[in-house]
Amino acid sequence: MAYQEFMIEGRNAVIEAYRSGRTVDKLYLLDGCQDGPILTIKREAKKQNTLVRYVDRERLDQMSQTGKHQGVIAVAAAYEYAEVEDLLNLARQKGEDPFLILLDNIEDPHNLGAIIRTANLAGAHGVIIPKNRAAGLTATVARTSAGALNYTPVAKVTNLAKTIEDLKKEGLWFVCADMDGTEMYDLNLKGPIGLVIGSEGEGVGRLVKEKCDMTASIPMKGDIDSLNASVAAGILAYEVVRQRRRA
Amino acid sequence: MAYQEFMIEGRNAVIEAYRSGRTVDKLYLLDGCQDGPILTIKREAKKQNTLVRYVDRERLDQMSQTGKHQGVIAVAAAYEYAEVEDLLNLARQKGEDPFLILLDNIEDPHNLGAIIRTANLAGAHGVIIPKNRAAGLTATVARTSAGALNYTPVAKVTNLAKTIEDLKKEGLWFVCADMDGTEMYDLNLKGPIGLVIGSEGEGVGRLVKEKCDMTASIPMKGDIDSLNASVAAGILAYEVVRQRRRA
Repeated sequence: MAYQEFMIEGRNAVIEAYRSGRTVDKLYLLDGCQDGPILTIKREAKKQNTLVRYVDRERLDQMSQTGKHQGVIAVAAAYEYAEVEDLLNLARQKGEDPFLILLDNIEDPHNLGAIIRTANLAGAHGVIIPKNRAAGLTATVARTSAGALNYTPVAKVTNLAKTIEDLKKEGLWFVCADMDGTEMYDLNLKGPIGLVIGSEGEGVGRLVKEKCDMTASIPMKGDIDSLNASVAAGILAYEVVRQRRRA
Repeated sequence: MAYQEFMIEGRNAVIEAYRSGRTVDKLYLLDGCQDGPILTIKREAKKQNTLVRYVDRERLDQMSQTGKHQGVIAVAAAYEYAEVEDLLNLARQKGEDPFLILLDNIEDPHNLGAIIRTANLAGAHGVIIPKNRAAGLTATVARTSAGALNYTPVAKVTNLAKTIEDLKKEGLWFVCADMDGTEMYDLNLKGPIGLVIGSEGEGVGRLVKEKCDMTASIPMKGDIDSLNASVAAGILAYEVVRQRRRA
């Protein structure tokens, strides 16, 4: 999959992008703009559940690469997202219990890229990110993933808590990373599993956490608060790997 | 410990820095310059084993923040380095078997910072880096370490292989991270230990690797080559933590 960055500017171009089925990560609209084409774009954005930001002209001018934004700039996925079903199919194809990594509040593209890289090497079948407040699959993510983005599918979902509920019906167990959890070595992390990782500052959101079956902590001996999110994801993912190998 | 960045410019300032005992990470000298003060600086550099680079005037002019470099710019440690002995003393104070992390060829300051952060939380007693080809303790390292640099001592040594030899006499065992090694779960990583991590591209250098008692690999199932160096360091450090807790 070749890499292409998509910043789509101008009314027709953005309407066209939606109609061709391209996933738009974010939409920047000139605040107060209400004409026909803009209303069409808003309708499409609503259908696709795109994150919309209303900004002033100065901000759009700054972002614009063409100088012809006409009050609308869309940021589209450089890589195409997979569906959650694709991730489960990948596990089926390999004859393995599903192992998914779900990210809540990870907004830093370097962390997202590093986690996709780890997911690939730990044998996870994919990564799930929420539509809201997540880094998109940008050039930085692709580069930091060191090529893993070509192999490890990433699905983007509207509601992470709802996705967890759906996946539980498919037989998955969910373990949430949290400092107050049970030490990861004392949990049973075998079988079909979803590992939920939050951001360094905020951790996993309450609604998502409540849906999880277990809470796992990494033992910490030090003087500071928390590990880097991608390092924590790596340590937890490899605890899953270790337990699976001993199964 | 407050953070200060040190780029020291000019002959007197650099001579003064050496005389006050400040650790100079790197010295940039105007190529061909041979007068008295420069010879004095070279002598100090030799005593302290500073890495010296001979560059042209254009390069010095570019680097200079004051415009008055007089043919010499020194880059000094923002944080003071510890001695290897300090790391062992820290372990003794805590009544623990020493657990040190040694880095070979890690030149990226983000990786160095993240590894210092991990070292702190995994309960390692310090990090050892070689004088040559290592990132210094710069502002970026301090920031990426998330404060860990204030607690976890970092020692800088001239020859990593020699340091390993010396530490073996103190009873430490050395395990080197390498893709061709024994799976980390199958090694005994308990007791006084030094964990040696290399760069993503090159791994641990041959001379250093030959001094190690064991070679540990992280099992990799994926399609790409290697984990991010700081993620790999985290996974290996926590395998040491896991085994120590089961001791």
